[in-house]
Amino acid sequence: MGTVASAEVDGASLLGDLDHLATIGADPGGGVSRVAYSTADVEARAWVRETMLGLGMQVRRDEALNVMGRYPGLEPRLKPLAVGSHTDTVPNGGRFDGALGVVGALACVRALAAAGVHLRHPVEVIDFAAEEATLGGGTLGSLAMTGRLQRGALTRPAWDGRPAAEHLRDAGLDPLSLSRAVRPGRCLAAYLELHIEQGGTLEAEGVPIGVVEGIVGIRRCAVTFAGQANHAGTTAMAGRRDALVMAAPFVLGVRDAAIAAGIVGTTGVLRVAPGAPNVIPGRVEVEAEFRGLDEAVLDRVEAELGAMAERLGGEFAQVSAKPPTSSHPLLVAAVEAACDALGLARRRMASGAGHDAMVIGERIPQAMIFVPSVGGVSHSPDELTPPERCVDGARVLLRALLELDQRLDA
Amino acid sequence: MGTVASAEVDGASLLGDLDHLATIGADPGGGVSRVAYSTADVEARAWVRETMLGLGMQVRRDEALNVMGRYPGLEPRLKPLAVGSHTDTVPNGGRFDGALGVVGALACVRALAAAGVHLRHPVEVIDFAAEEATLGGGTLGSLAMTGRLQRGALTRPAWDGRPAAEHLRDAGLDPLSLSRAVRPGRCLAAYLELHIEQGGTLEAEGVPIGVVEGIVGIRRCAVTFAGQANHAGTTAMAGRRDALVMAAPFVLGVRDAAIAAGIVGTTGVLRVAPGAPNVIPGRVEVEAEFRGLDEAVLDRVEAELGAMAERLGGEFAQVSAKPPTSSHPLLVAAVEAACDALGLARRRMASGAGHDAMVIGERIPQAMIFVPSVGGVSHSPDELTPPERCVDGARVLLRALLELDQRLDA
Repeated sequence: MGTVASAEVDGASLLGDLDHLATIGADPGGGVSRVAYSTADVEARAWVRETMLGLGMQVRRDEALNVMGRYPGLEPRLKPLAVGSHTDTVPNGGRFDGALGVVGALACVRALAAAGVHLRHPVEVIDFAAEEATLGGGTLGSLAMTGRLQRGALTRPAWDGRPAAEHLRDAGLDPLSLSRAVRPGRCLAAYLELHIEQGGTLEAEGVPIGVVEGIVGIRRCAVTFAGQANHAGTTAMAGRRDALVMAAPFVLGVRDAAIAAGIVGTTGVLRVAPGAPNVIPGRVEVEAEFRGLDEAVLDRVEAELGAMAERLGGEFAQVSAKPPTSSHPLLVAAVEAACDALGLARRRMASGAGHDAMVIGERIPQAMIFVPSVGGVSHSPDELTPPERCVDGARVLLRALLELDQRLDA
Repeated sequence: MGTVASAEVDGASLLGDLDHLATIGADPGGGVSRVAYSTADVEARAWVRETMLGLGMQVRRDEALNVMGRYPGLEPRLKPLAVGSHTDTVPNGGRFDGALGVVGALACVRALAAAGVHLRHPVEVIDFAAEEATLGGGTLGSLAMTGRLQRGALTRPAWDGRPAAEHLRDAGLDPLSLSRAVRPGRCLAAYLELHIEQGGTLEAEGVPIGVVEGIVGIRRCAVTFAGQANHAGTTAMAGRRDALVMAAPFVLGVRDAAIAAGIVGTTGVLRVAPGAPNVIPGRVEVEAEFRGLDEAVLDRVEAELGAMAERLGGEFAQVSAKPPTSSHPLLVAAVEAACDALGLARRRMASGAGHDAMVIGERIPQAMIFVPSVGGVSHSPDELTPPERCVDGARVLLRALLELDQRLDA
């Protein structure tokens, strides 16, 4: 029996867990495929459950395949401090995205258990289901848990073209019972998530810890350029309505508008019809998105792109709008205090990616801890966070938990 | 029995033939699908053969399904004057492209037969097989006839993804016997083809007849832009290598280079990988082509586009280069004399599309006669040449034949 302050993350166990997870769904040519509800995903969640049981936790799996383990606290009236992330991946993704946050959360409990201590609050580790946007827009597990999963979300095609619901059935789940995964709005005291940055800022600046002060809002839009398909040889240049020539400046405009506004903007989809070398493109469909922390900036850029699309002869439509989410100041302060206590340099930053913390954060105070991604690469077999940086992240997570345990419900 | 000069095209028969052909392979929603070697294509060729037989012609079908009918001449030592086009279409194409040239050629023979006259030369009507680029690059029948069909041409996928050879087998042909379709190099005295313009110049200028002085050369190129796929939210704008942002200026550059050089240029294909809204494009493949009558201009534009692609970070490769083909001055003169005799305004022009005349023209003097395409539309159900313009074209074709009959082998 030690004191709470004596609890220390076991770096070797943490890295061993990461290595082991990477064997589940390992791709022959490198990388990991644990796409939501695949056999590998189900297997990884079974391993998480076993590990939780081995740490003496009370484990529960819900109808969405969220896996939750509880390490009891000293004061029965207190709600749990939750920590976690997800173990599903994109197809042929990396071994750190999501996985680090789950094994980091398990490492925190392992540290407490090894020291034989309990916090005032229970600690709940959550392995959220289907975080990656392989089925619909992603964060399916946290949406189900918070009762915000939209009707019809499972009828749309998943990443492989099959209906999302089929993937759930393959994993032995009943798509119609997802509504039973809902938990009461204030069932957790707070949520902390350790995650790789997925950008290159921390590495470039040589800072080991990013303290996430907010998760960007995401606007998606679709623009259709309707030209006139015609013969590429016989149609004079002056008489053309070439949909691709109409669309090309829009691609550059999305980039320019994002840079000017200090946010990010991307045209990730551009489809040309009919798409033959000897036919002038008659129709081009573009999908673009832009992300930022400031809703007013997003509004302005959206209006700019809408006007530009129209000027170019395109038809602009908003596809979706996810609002930005702010981290809770008390949690941000706890993470910063943890970094300072451990002597680890830190910088505040925005998360450019959506996360379960964004979904959970609508009801429960949340914050995230980022560790560097080498080269800013993620969703790729080349995804890499150096081992010592992984351990740093878990140490900050544990220390922040201890801080929160004191600061919350005091 | 009349004189040769009394032979007149029967406009009503010609338009009736066009109407009848349009019923073979008619699409329910409009347009015509007589894709090479389909049932409809075979059926149309059977109708052409029957019509030829009805006109007292000697008919032959070769191994490629070229249909050839001969109307005898008065001087046995003379080679035939050939006239024709093709009855195959693109999927859901129009009723004039190709068809007009075949029924126009039949109308010429009908005129001679009705007048009970023969020319000095035999007249040979040819319905070339697989002119449209539905199997490989098109003009398969004329390539086979001139012995220039490349080995392996039939192993490549056809328009529907199936191997080209399978389409031939479906039509009861033996792909291995195509080499037997070759005819001696100088087997024809000349070749004249009536065709729709497929561009909007004649209509815009109100000129009924285009005298084709050459068929453009076609250069095709492929450019690959290799960027770095990455997360669209977490990757700072400054750190991106967005393949679509690299490629967009190339699309505009192809247009600008073509306009500057007075030719046509088109980017008809642009493929984005991975093509997800939340992923920065990592790879873009572009296929562009440009066409012109002057080989030196094509060389210069190709060099310009190659340099531009490199400047933008792309990798440029020539895919194919078809040289321009000039019409034979004697045939051009005969067509112009025919227009003048009939009091029909004419203008010289280039053909922006490839035709069987281009293939045949490598060995045999050729020229083409164009009639207006309303709106410059072709390869579409909306393809239209007004009836009186169709008849004008056939009248010029007949008159040019009479001119040539006098001028050649005199």
